[in-house]
Amino acid sequence: MESSGQNPATVTAAVLVIGDEILSGRTQDQNSGYIARYLAQIGVDLREVRVVPDVEADIVAAVNALRARYAYVFTTGGIGPTHDDITADSISKAFELPCVEDPRAIAMLLERIPADKLNAARRRMARVPQGSELIDNPISKAPGFMIGNVVVMAGVPAIMEAMLDAVAPRLARGACVQVETLDAGAMAEGRYAEALEKIALAYAAVSIGSYPSFSATGPRNQIVLRSKDAALLARATAGVRDMLAELNAEGARL
Amino acid sequence: MESSGQNPATVTAAVLVIGDEILSGRTQDQNSGYIARYLAQIGVDLREVRVVPDVEADIVAAVNALRARYAYVFTTGGIGPTHDDITADSISKAFELPCVEDPRAIAMLLERIPADKLNAARRRMARVPQGSELIDNPISKAPGFMIGNVVVMAGVPAIMEAMLDAVAPRLARGACVQVETLDAGAMAEGRYAEALEKIALAYAAVSIGSYPSFSATGPRNQIVLRSKDAALLARATAGVRDMLAELNAEGARL
Repeated sequence: MESSGQNPATVTAAVLVIGDEILSGRTQDQNSGYIARYLAQIGVDLREVRVVPDVEADIVAAVNALRARYAYVFTTGGIGPTHDDITADSISKAFELPCVEDPRAIAMLLERIPADKLNAARRRMARVPQGSELIDNPISKAPGFMIGNVVVMAGVPAIMEAMLDAVAPRLARGACVQVETLDAGAMAEGRYAEALEKIALAYAAVSIGSYPSFSATGPRNQIVLRSKDAALLARATAGVRDMLAELNAEGARL
Repeated sequence: MESSGQNPATVTAAVLVIGDEILSGRTQDQNSGYIARYLAQIGVDLREVRVVPDVEADIVAAVNALRARYAYVFTTGGIGPTHDDITADSISKAFELPCVEDPRAIAMLLERIPADKLNAARRRMARVPQGSELIDNPISKAPGFMIGNVVVMAGVPAIMEAMLDAVAPRLARGACVQVETLDAGAMAEGRYAEALEKIALAYAAVSIGSYPSFSATGPRNQIVLRSKDAALLARATAGVRDMLAELNAEGARL
């Protein structure tokens, strides 16, 4: 097996989407795809996504399973002022910490909400697990928070995206995965599968995927190679390119 | 607490999306949203979604956790002819069954692939856990399969959608969740949160969610009520409608 001998740093993560509205099909989740692309660019490897309903026991179980396994867990949803916003309480329970009103969060809310309108429901948005760091929300002020390795963000995409920008500088980063995409055109996966497997076995540190799609003009396949090791990636990519050229030439000879 | 005394049948499900391409951000998963909407319409309650990479141990662990907990598990992805298509082997391992070539699946493949082109890679698409029922694929012929309560489908959306149509008649169905959506307009969530919570507590069999969004013209909130009990849903919806009218009138008096 080819190897460069390097062992690039790896920082792993999971996303936990909290929300009945995703599971009912009312809302198409766009946040996990956004977070996936964002983390790839800053050297954090997304390894798992879960979507759970607004049910405390389900959130607690998922948070505890994921935070034990990955370097970071990013949650979205459930931090507003209404009764179905139970994320802060659920994360507190997962960490066995009291859920407390944070005076810094109250100060943030007061930047947008007049003091006489800061009712009990709105004050709920200032409750966090004791000891949390806050995450700025430039759009509607109610902050996200980070406790241990769990980053808790809003579900509204524009706010989630701003919170991710705010928290990103605090995160540990690994080496970025580099990607090469080769177009196999209309060549069927079944024609190149055996040759591609040989290359995949020779380059275990390069993840190689074959992705079919079907359009009106027939199949169109792409081969995607991903690795943190640029030299290995370049050699594996050259191998796949040669393989495709050889199969195309063979097809032309038939 | 108001109740109609009925206890409508419940059939639960989870979706397991298998694929590095979703976690890397290359591909935006549309399948789980499609399945969510589809299942809601046929009386199956989607309770959880997980996305895992093309790693056998991760697939096995997720399948076993989900099939023990829910009535059905729907997987997407990883049933093509290339080396990264490891779903059939992984599901077999989860069920502790041999993964065998199914002669009925070979016959399906031969409808599209000439016999002299049915190489080892393409034959892989006919391998299923022993005892599986096949699921027709009208688009590219390679079938999905169902073993126990696990439904295994392709990742290409058009094929997955056709397989879901093919398998739907075999599924147990519960009562459908009925949905009412009320527009709270620009009224802030913090204004109605307390009154809404009282209604939610009075109607525990009605799931009530408040969903904010932000547009160029400011906030626009929706309140969504969901229940299998039409009579309770109607009463709770009337309660929320009255609450919004009262708060709007109060706002106008100020």
